Amino acid sequence: MRKGKNFNPNECPVTHCLNLIGGKWKPVVIHLLRKGCNRFSMLQKAIPDISKQMLTQQLRELEEDGLIERKIFAEIPPRVEYYISEYGQTLFPVIDAMSDWGLKDMKKVA
Amino acid sequence: MRKGKNFNPNECPVTHCLNLIGGKWKPVVIHLLRKGCNRFSMLQKAIPDISKQMLTQQLRELEEDGLIERKIFAEIPPRVEYYISEYGQTLFPVIDAMSDWGLKDMKKVA
Repeated sequence: MRKGKNFNPNECPVTHCLNLIGGKWKPVVIHLLRKGCNRFSMLQKAIPDISKQMLTQQLRELEEDGLIERKIFAEIPPRVEYYISEYGQTLFPVIDAMSDWGLKDMKKVA
Repeated sequence: MRKGKNFNPNECPVTHCLNLIGGKWKPVVIHLLRKGCNRFSMLQKAIPDISKQMLTQQLRELEEDGLIERKIFAEIPPRVEYYISEYGQTLFPVIDAMSDWGLKDMKKVA
């Protein structure tokens, strides 16, 4: 059976999902924001492999897509924190599935 | 609460999962293989945005990580097909979560 033969990637729900959280970093950023890593510097510390530019870009794209919200606190210097939007929270089952798989697989390797 | 403060990315299960299927294409490739798109040309057709080089690389990495298997059929010319390994199948819940989210989100946009 060749269901895939006439598969339309534009109607592919996995592609649709990856259009929003594809790439190496976005699910990790969402996962960390959920855990309370709400500031740029904390995210950077938690993901040592990511460059400042790359993290900036990931946060910008997540914000543009409405998955996260940036909150600016009127302090001196102004404090900026990132939060997962209501829409972004709908992705938690995806992040959970990744996390569950990761936990199981890490145990197997250890 | 700042759970994230001392978060170790090396022990992050989401990072662990993305080490294997991070990127724009791998989950889609697994999804398509599962649907019966078992040949290079079929995958290429189903993902028009992917270059030949990129698809080759994704398949090679998936194979190296043991998530897919390449089967060569002794025909002339030899036929090559890709299949999801038993280990790769453990990722189905992750792909399913992406697919479920994608389906719901696509309905919302439409």
